[in-house]
Amino acid sequence: MLAPSKTGIMETKGNKQKWGTEMSYNDRFIRAVRQEPVDRVPVWYMRQAGRYDPDYRKIKEKYSLLEICQQPELAAEVTMMPVKKLGVDAAILYSDIMNPVASIGIDFDIVANVGPVIANPIRSAADVERLKPIDVEGDLNHVLETIRILDRELEVPLITFAGAPFTIASYLIEGRPSKNYLRTKALMYSEPEVWHKLMHKLGDMVITYLRAHMAAGGKAFQLFDSWVGALAPHDFRTFVLPTIERIFAELSDLPQPKIYFPGVASGELLTELHDVQANAIGLDWRVSIPEGRRRLGNRFAVQGNLDPVVLTAPQQVIEAHAKTIIDQGLQQPGFVFNLGHGLFPEASLDKLKDLTAFVHRYSAEAIAAGKAEGASSHV
Amino acid sequence: MLAPSKTGIMETKGNKQKWGTEMSYNDRFIRAVRQEPVDRVPVWYMRQAGRYDPDYRKIKEKYSLLEICQQPELAAEVTMMPVKKLGVDAAILYSDIMNPVASIGIDFDIVANVGPVIANPIRSAADVERLKPIDVEGDLNHVLETIRILDRELEVPLITFAGAPFTIASYLIEGRPSKNYLRTKALMYSEPEVWHKLMHKLGDMVITYLRAHMAAGGKAFQLFDSWVGALAPHDFRTFVLPTIERIFAELSDLPQPKIYFPGVASGELLTELHDVQANAIGLDWRVSIPEGRRRLGNRFAVQGNLDPVVLTAPQQVIEAHAKTIIDQGLQQPGFVFNLGHGLFPEASLDKLKDLTAFVHRYSAEAIAAGKAEGASSHV
Repeated sequence: MLAPSKTGIMETKGNKQKWGTEMSYNDRFIRAVRQEPVDRVPVWYMRQAGRYDPDYRKIKEKYSLLEICQQPELAAEVTMMPVKKLGVDAAILYSDIMNPVASIGIDFDIVANVGPVIANPIRSAADVERLKPIDVEGDLNHVLETIRILDRELEVPLITFAGAPFTIASYLIEGRPSKNYLRTKALMYSEPEVWHKLMHKLGDMVITYLRAHMAAGGKAFQLFDSWVGALAPHDFRTFVLPTIERIFAELSDLPQPKIYFPGVASGELLTELHDVQANAIGLDWRVSIPEGRRRLGNRFAVQGNLDPVVLTAPQQVIEAHAKTIIDQGLQQPGFVFNLGHGLFPEASLDKLKDLTAFVHRYSAEAIAAGKAEGASSHV
Repeated sequence: MLAPSKTGIMETKGNKQKWGTEMSYNDRFIRAVRQEPVDRVPVWYMRQAGRYDPDYRKIKEKYSLLEICQQPELAAEVTMMPVKKLGVDAAILYSDIMNPVASIGIDFDIVANVGPVIANPIRSAADVERLKPIDVEGDLNHVLETIRILDRELEVPLITFAGAPFTIASYLIEGRPSKNYLRTKALMYSEPEVWHKLMHKLGDMVITYLRAHMAAGGKAFQLFDSWVGALAPHDFRTFVLPTIERIFAELSDLPQPKIYFPGVASGELLTELHDVQANAIGLDWRVSIPEGRRRLGNRFAVQGNLDPVVLTAPQQVIEAHAKTIIDQGLQQPGFVFNLGHGLFPEASLDKLKDLTAFVHRYSAEAIAAGKAEGASSHV
């Protein structure tokens, strides 16, 4: 049984019933992100509320992603489904990284089998000029209401999220998902002032949006920079990193732990992140946990990094991969088991349930046996 | 003026006119790949015969890629176009990595705006079983004839190429270009014996095909593993590397220099390549040249690695990026300037011509000024 966290963040409004006599709240995720001892490795999966789940698919037959988001009770239910079904140690708000951009003046739709499609892509100084400040309470109250419901209902921490400026910009500029980010990089290289203004405005959007999430009851947040790994490190440093550093600096007064996920193929960017005021960094599957920690200067908790496609394999293969990751993760405090990228629709509910149980069981045994350096059993 | 190479490979049949009294043959590419001194950095571009060139687009209006390949005179002409127009230091055979697979029993087509599409994807042991050995002379004589023509015509080395087994397998299994390689990895994880048999057969295909290229007059070859960077390093080591090592070991008697290009997002795989008997390794743009060399144990020449999307930028931005790469490249012998991935149709002929001239001029000055460690002017 876990003692209440000493970090204090669980004592904020909305969670009072989870502290005191009732001890069922599972704060392992928060403790691990803070590099505190845990009795087993916490697990969650990016895109854990998704099409691999037949019940979710049924809901999606009736409502689009954005329609679900606009109904707080339903969005909260969808958020909680994988917590109940898989036994994961954190919930992630059901939403989309594009959700807030309507509020800054972008018309978009999420098209089935395509992704976000933007009616009027951002390609000029004038386009950037006309972006408005985000109005979270006015335009995105449904998101805050979903967070409030989840804060009352959940017995695991709620992670909320935002898309990072580069990744959001790639959609706004290309107008749709892109393979090579030609237009995005063309704007970046050809009109650096316009680019930096766009990064600044999207940074402001992210800061305001995440601050509102945390005020509404979010227990941690993750900044998703899914596609920034398309940049060479020196371009990342010049065109993106200043905004990432600013976002985390401006939110550093918040007690909730903060995660930056630089997305796929981001191994070369890790050495650039030393000054980002995040608690944890998400790793994709290409970089091993020890190498990732080394590049990060051993400053951060790490989260990851099973190749989601390994979930197509037989269970013993999945577990062999997971075992390697857990063994590496437990070499230092501060490890959260996750994937290296979001779940695919082809993933299986049963395999995910088994994997979650395996991570819990195997890591609990390893920690109890004292195999883990720096991690210890916490009774 | 360059003296003839001492490596001897230029003295093989077909190039006799280029040695002796006539001194115009440009062997800088060969010398750089062999880590020999050069008076300027050699340049070529992956997919340098391509849609960015209006004359090429005109030819493509009349003929498909495969139809061009089947006409040796035309294929040779297309191969030579960028040599004449851009002033690059090597030609790369106009072909497609899928070209040889018809000979092993795969029906495929290259569909405009899609890529290779396979009528009967390989997904079972029986599918792998029915793959035949390649018959280069019988089925691919047009490729050999193209190489023979180019061997007579070119005044720069001809690089030929093959697709590497993982990359070819990804098309054969998925049936078309893929983003996540779900089916490919599923086969690899779920039926490792079938997978290894497929790798073995594709390895045999590559070995026979490239050996025939070299016999016909190819002056170097590159093995393109464009998509293998999708694998975590331990999966690469288990499922792919043994075949890569075998290909280069079995071809190690050939005097021609050999390049392995592990494609995009392959930085984490470089440390695995130490025992590959290649002369040079291609780097994608995410990893810096010094870091790439370090991971490769300083054993190889390196080739790369401008982000092809930088070619959308104004010329001074392109040159600033190129300058950094050249400065890094010249820190050690063995550097060939290239892109980190193939050229896009959106690239511009004029910018490429200017870039090529810039690399030549800037690197010649740096070498002449003795800035380059280990590289020296060769008069």
